[in-house]
Amino acid sequence: MSWLDEIHFDGNGLVPVIAQDAETGRVLMFAFANREAVELSAAKLTAHYWTRSRQKLWHKGEESGHVQHIKEIRLDCDGDVLIYLIHQDGGIACHTGRESCFFRRLEGDQWQTVDAVLKDPSEIYRA
Amino acid sequence: MSWLDEIHFDGNGLVPVIAQDAETGRVLMFAFANREAVELSAAKLTAHYWTRSRQKLWHKGEESGHVQHIKEIRLDCDGDVLIYLIHQDGGIACHTGRESCFFRRLEGDQWQTVDAVLKDPSEIYRA
Repeated sequence: MSWLDEIHFDGNGLVPVIAQDAETGRVLMFAFANREAVELSAAKLTAHYWTRSRQKLWHKGEESGHVQHIKEIRLDCDGDVLIYLIHQDGGIACHTGRESCFFRRLEGDQWQTVDAVLKDPSEIYRA
Repeated sequence: MSWLDEIHFDGNGLVPVIAQDAETGRVLMFAFANREAVELSAAKLTAHYWTRSRQKLWHKGEESGHVQHIKEIRLDCDGDVLIYLIHQDGGIACHTGRESCFFRRLEGDQWQTVDAVLKDPSEIYRA
């Protein structure tokens, strides 16, 4: 039995993945992966996902250059969630140009944006 | 518009939640919450979820005593994933008696259990 067989993919063949900075522990993003994406991630040690909006394999950084280098992969008790512990090229994981996608914090009854844009997205995603 | 309205719940009315230790940054567990669970979490500052297996509101720690005290709530760029930054009572988030549900690490082509059981589950969940 392969280690891939121990992962419980959902009805759509996907598993949630938490991408976490291996050095700082910051959670950078959350996405889904299919079996091929997980296999490629482990083989190439760069993060691969499945993009549900575009319905295709997604090698993170293929457009932005913000490749995620995998240091470790973790599986949870139920076998249905993964963590990729990574080094983030460029220090930017979010398509908004921020370090992390989790840049909004609940303050009172409002979401406040508390993290700076490090690079303008138009500079990241050139045509 | 309420801050709750800015959260994009999925077709089942759920949003994924990453529970992360506010002090160490360790990702402790992953679960889902419905609108009521998120609202209660913010109001009471203890983590509430929706358990899909039992199909009910779940106040984490209600059986185990391992309550999660919320220090901060974060929302991602797409508005469809939350992080609860927490202090974990008892230092145990996983039903297996471990600190974190993510206790298996990929080593070569095998998942290795690399974290110790801190308390026997039979001691945690008494009838």
